[in-house]
Amino acid sequence: MSEPILAAVMTAPRRPIELRDFPRPDLPAGAALLRTACSEVCGTDVHLWHGRLSGVPYPIIPGHVSAGTIEASRGRITGIDGSEIHEGHRVVFFDVHRTCGRCRACTVHRTPTRCASRRVYGITDPASEGLFGGWSQAVYLEPGVAMARLPDAIAFDDYIGGGCGLITAVHMIERAEIRLGDSVVVQGTGAVGLSAIALARLSGASRIVAIGAPESRLSLAREMGADVALDVTRTSVEERRQAVNDLTYDECADVVLEAAGAAAAVPEGLDLVRVGGRYVIGGHYTDAGPATINAHHQINRKHLEIRGCWGSEIRHFLRAIAILETNPSIPFRKIGAQRYGLEQINDALADAEALRIPKALVDPWS
Amino acid sequence: MSEPILAAVMTAPRRPIELRDFPRPDLPAGAALLRTACSEVCGTDVHLWHGRLSGVPYPIIPGHVSAGTIEASRGRITGIDGSEIHEGHRVVFFDVHRTCGRCRACTVHRTPTRCASRRVYGITDPASEGLFGGWSQAVYLEPGVAMARLPDAIAFDDYIGGGCGLITAVHMIERAEIRLGDSVVVQGTGAVGLSAIALARLSGASRIVAIGAPESRLSLAREMGADVALDVTRTSVEERRQAVNDLTYDECADVVLEAAGAAAAVPEGLDLVRVGGRYVIGGHYTDAGPATINAHHQINRKHLEIRGCWGSEIRHFLRAIAILETNPSIPFRKIGAQRYGLEQINDALADAEALRIPKALVDPWS
Amino acid sequence: MSEPILAAVMTAPRRPIELRDFPRPDLPAGAALLRTACSEVCGTDVHLWHGRLSGVPYPIIPGHVSAGTIEASRGRITGIDGSEIHEGHRVVFFDVHRTCGRCRACTVHRTPTRCASRRVYGITDPASEGLFGGWSQAVYLEPGVAMARLPDAIAFDDYIGGGCGLITAVHMIERAEIRLGDSVVVQGTGAVGLSAIALARLSGASRIVAIGAPESRLSLAREMGADVALDVTRTSVEERRQAVNDLTYDECADVVLEAAGAAAAVPEGLDLVRVGGRYVIGGHYTDAGPATINAHHQINRKHLEIRGCWGSEIRHFLRAIAILETNPSIPFRKIGAQRYGLEQINDALADAEALRIPKALVDPWS
Amino acid sequence: MSEPILAAVMTAPRRPIELRDFPRPDLPAGAALLRTACSEVCGTDVHLWHGRLSGVPYPIIPGHVSAGTIEASRGRITGIDGSEIHEGHRVVFFDVHRTCGRCRACTVHRTPTRCASRRVYGITDPASEGLFGGWSQAVYLEPGVAMARLPDAIAFDDYIGGGCGLITAVHMIERAEIRLGDSVVVQGTGAVGLSAIALARLSGASRIVAIGAPESRLSLAREMGADVALDVTRTSVEERRQAVNDLTYDECADVVLEAAGAAAAVPEGLDLVRVGGRYVIGGHYTDAGPATINAHHQINRKHLEIRGCWGSEIRHFLRAIAILETNPSIPFRKIGAQRYGLEQINDALADAEALRIPKALVDPWS
Repeated sequence: MSEPILAAVMTAPRRPIELRDFPRPDLPAGAALLRTACSEVCGTDVHLWHGRLSGVPYPIIPGHVSAGTIEASRGRITGIDGSEIHEGHRVVFFDVHRTCGRCRACTVHRTPTRCASRRVYGITDPASEGLFGGWSQAVYLEPGVAMARLPDAIAFDDYIGGGCGLITAVHMIERAEIRLGDSVVVQGTGAVGLSAIALARLSGASRIVAIGAPESRLSLAREMGADVALDVTRTSVEERRQAVNDLTYDECADVVLEAAGAAAAVPEGLDLVRVGGRYVIGGHYTDAGPATINAHHQINRKHLEIRGCWGSEIRHFLRAIAILETNPSIPFRKIGAQRYGLEQINDALADAEALRIPKALVDPWS
Repeated sequence: MSEPILAAVMTAPRRPIELRDFPRPDLPAGAALLRTACSEVCGTDVHLWHGRLSGVPYPIIPGHVSAGTIEASRGRITGIDGSEIHEGHRVVFFDVHRTCGRCRACTVHRTPTRCASRRVYGITDPASEGLFGGWSQAVYLEPGVAMARLPDAIAFDDYIGGGCGLITAVHMIERAEIRLGDSVVVQGTGAVGLSAIALARLSGASRIVAIGAPESRLSLAREMGADVALDVTRTSVEERRQAVNDLTYDECADVVLEAAGAAAAVPEGLDLVRVGGRYVIGGHYTDAGPATINAHHQINRKHLEIRGCWGSEIRHFLRAIAILETNPSIPFRKIGAQRYGLEQINDALADAEALRIPKALVDPWS
Repeated sequence: MSEPILAAVMTAPRRPIELRDFPRPDLPAGAALLRTACSEVCGTDVHLWHGRLSGVPYPIIPGHVSAGTIEASRGRITGIDGSEIHEGHRVVFFDVHRTCGRCRACTVHRTPTRCASRRVYGITDPASEGLFGGWSQAVYLEPGVAMARLPDAIAFDDYIGGGCGLITAVHMIERAEIRLGDSVVVQGTGAVGLSAIALARLSGASRIVAIGAPESRLSLAREMGADVALDVTRTSVEERRQAVNDLTYDECADVVLEAAGAAAAVPEGLDLVRVGGRYVIGGHYTDAGPATINAHHQINRKHLEIRGCWGSEIRHFLRAIAILETNPSIPFRKIGAQRYGLEQINDALADAEALRIPKALVDPWS
Repeated sequence: MSEPILAAVMTAPRRPIELRDFPRPDLPAGAALLRTACSEVCGTDVHLWHGRLSGVPYPIIPGHVSAGTIEASRGRITGIDGSEIHEGHRVVFFDVHRTCGRCRACTVHRTPTRCASRRVYGITDPASEGLFGGWSQAVYLEPGVAMARLPDAIAFDDYIGGGCGLITAVHMIERAEIRLGDSVVVQGTGAVGLSAIALARLSGASRIVAIGAPESRLSLAREMGADVALDVTRTSVEERRQAVNDLTYDECADVVLEAAGAAAAVPEGLDLVRVGGRYVIGGHYTDAGPATINAHHQINRKHLEIRGCWGSEIRHFLRAIAILETNPSIPFRKIGAQRYGLEQINDALADAEALRIPKALVDPWS
């Protein structure tokens, strides 16, 4: 138990990721050490590497959503459902921790995703504090972290294929209040958008139009459940609007889900929602610049509802697991297009940055 | 009963209003003729005169919200509550008529304010079809128009003081889902904004900040219930934001109601809502030009809800009457600052256009 | 075009149904005559025959949901989506007509299913007024009836297999606000319950438990999507509760849908919902007698939501068509277990009364 | 600082309350000692004394809602709004503590009032653990308890006059979603009902009917804002229904709030809500026995919503403080009809049990 733990460290924006040895941590009561089976390189990691998130305490060990096996624990450890967790159990955990549950955001406004005490594995936890990221052979699960056993039917790669994108999409779908028979447009075919397509289908959407690029992702969008997948680089705004109208009595869609993260998506999205419909904006994790809208034509006269969707909560994490378990035929795994070892982590980041893959799987033991 | 009826006609945008005689209409079964006691010149009439609403069938008789006494009727006439309406009754009516109740907007989407068959007295009904506006000694109430008796406790001037602005504000308040204790900002101190202030107060708002101009309206805003009324022409965006923060734990307001109709109000309004709050956009009846927003900072990260609010429905009309009846101490009457006869209607329009008054009362018999 | 039309008439409760000739109606502008391809005998028809609905103007032509081909029409006839309807078109219509759209129920309370003017084909329309029911070779579609073309992909028998039960179930599912991943119990495996199972599945329910009888319906319940189907006559309340708990972390179900119409279902249903869950009561069309509940244990302490669900609206009718079109693999057709001609209508009624079939299809031309 | 602290102890149901000395507690970091200025004897305390709540760890120090001055603290103590709390500050606290924020009730179902870890001062905390109740000269505020400074404008007696009943009523009003102009019936004129009347009025209710007894409470109900207050012991069910209909177009009330805690209130309440209205059941803290309802007439056909309301959350506690601060003219203080010292605590309990007072104020220093 005394050999060091190898982890990949992002020392600063745009610097090559470095591999470092970390000491095996002492565990206080209620803590556990997770032997990492799989983690991920997602769009947020690219943003981290570009330095586009504020307040990140570099150096950090990235990898916010991860899965593995409990290697060690101290005291009684329980999952969210109250069942005990033991060494050897296959476990996943909710990357957001230290949400206080006492502040006005947590209690009065019921916006715990904006709690000021909130920390996130792989993003806001500095490497100086320990193994708080999944690009590592082990992850330190501090007391209070929300854990759940991963059902045997879900392979680690399936779970990470869904990963943070799936959890975010669960929140967006909840926020969208999709009703049986609704027509849905999904803007963006990255990890969030692809998951959102599948979840819209599961929620009873009648028609789903995906808008994104490149062709490989559009193809996967169709596999996830899109009736139509449009290449945003090869179609005009007018063509896309026409394609949506063709499926929706010329009314535009009941629901539009923004998972593109581009400023231009916003005015287009407003035009793709029908009068009285809902537009959920969930893809702008970082500042993509100003967007120009017309409040009369696009909001007031349309009697529209626009809903921002920030972060996720424990219930989204749990629903994601349940969805993976009960829907093995949905190819979430394919979102995690390729596996990389820690030695290849700079390649993984480069491939994700270049959009060659929606997401990289990280296997710290390969 | 055969003498002609005098009415004011807007023949085309920016042309002087003309007075004309109209024949007394034959009434089919279910129709009534209302002797007009009071009508109004509101901001929409100024828009009409500027030619800023599309599809208006000039010449028209303006005056969409009006009140009076039933002068004649044919067959059985009932109010919305099923009670009979007779000659001599003091009556008000809902200006929106011919909503079809069958189309997809009416039935599937539950957005009857966007029904394509919908017509509005004083706005979309041509003078060639008859007395469909309140700038007239009498108004023709066609079969199917939603009527209600005006309680004796409400003077005609009180009703028109509230008028269309009050009915619109009832809808905005419903859409805002104000909860007991919410802090509220109202952008705009015209007829809608002033009513919205009073309704926010009645709904249990803890703190209300009004933003508008000129000083006479701000003074009235305070009378309607605003704790603080800020002059938009004499304060900076930063000063206004600070004033809101000072009343709201530095969080910004739970709810912001846009009743300003200016493009610049939208980005400012987004900044004045707290994380997880609600922003209702109800003042953009016409195209006020493009607004620049930031989807990351102002919507996504704020987990915001933005709700467009278009037109109004019968229930808002009825609630407006009930509010006037049960709250006689609220000075809705003062919104209708001054009375004008039909001969003075061009002056009334000029005064409204110059913002010298929030609204003019029209008395076609003075 | 002058030969008479044969129809089956229910002259009074518990009297044999009689066949009678009716004259072919003159059509006013906006009306149409539908050559009936298929109608149904459902549970409501059994209630009608038992005299358990109040205010029914016997004699009536039963058959509230029906489908056919336009045989004649006068003037311009349009569907709800605004498209024209011509002779020869395959058409279905919403059985509820004459909803006024003006009264307090329609406008203030938004409960049009309780509009006092509302009439229903096959239930509240007397035979003395004409062909207002589907147990007839033709149905008179009066002006204003909401029609829609039946997509070619939907056979008449598929549509009636779903029929009124499907439309009711669409409303119940809307009222239940099922969220992706919810566990659902459906009480009752008649036409409504069977459809509700399928719709819960389409809406993303993770687990569905059906409770009903007899075995043939339980078998169909499994085909419609139930994970578990329990025979209410062969299991105890405790066994059923245990079965639900086994699928739901011992918490009971997120949502319970009551489509049983038995008083005993209510207290059991309250026990099968989890704390904070939703219980939709939609099966009590008629008075099934008193139920005994405990407000502390079953409502207050459970922080429960109970929602009555009465009738249906045009949007449920349209969603039912869309669901049939996009989900051809769901065996709605099997709910309409058997076809009967008009000569066999008393047999059909007897089979439905004895629960030998969930529903009979009526083919007035066989 | 070493003298003992005098507290009143309920040793077992129906035994006289005893006064005992407790040692002054050692404070861990984050804890504080509150010198009690005022606590209360409410209906729940009567239930406690009757032994009607399950799982109470007698002996206990009752008094769940209390107010006072910080006498001692250790480490940094902050209120819910993040501001620091120091010795000498006037402070109130939320009686519910140890809600875990991690379990399925807290996170998945968003029903923290049913968290299994939840404890409540004065009810579920044993005297053996220390000063966890307000019938004591000091209350131990353990780390994590949610505190807020009491604004100077609110006297201690005002705060306790509202007390637990006000906080419960804030939750019920939230759950009722009262809209401006709604008619409201409040069943019960105890501490919860009286507060609910005031809050319904503040929320914009147009008409409020209170049902309760005895006359002294009905008189206070009128002062709190009821338009009509009916004596449940001197009127028949029919008379009460007629009284409600007289104020509501013969439709019954938009909203009924149950704060009576009697089984008979439930069927009556269901009859007093209009079609499509809302019925909030919040008064059944303990088992008041079975109620007989008719699901057809009272729920299904009425398209009703019934909502149980259990306990309260921090946001209700905070809103209660804000309401007291901004509405000094509402006589919440009168609910706490009379002051008692610790020596008189058995008298206070007897007076509350006999309904001679809605609530007793406890001043442990008198």
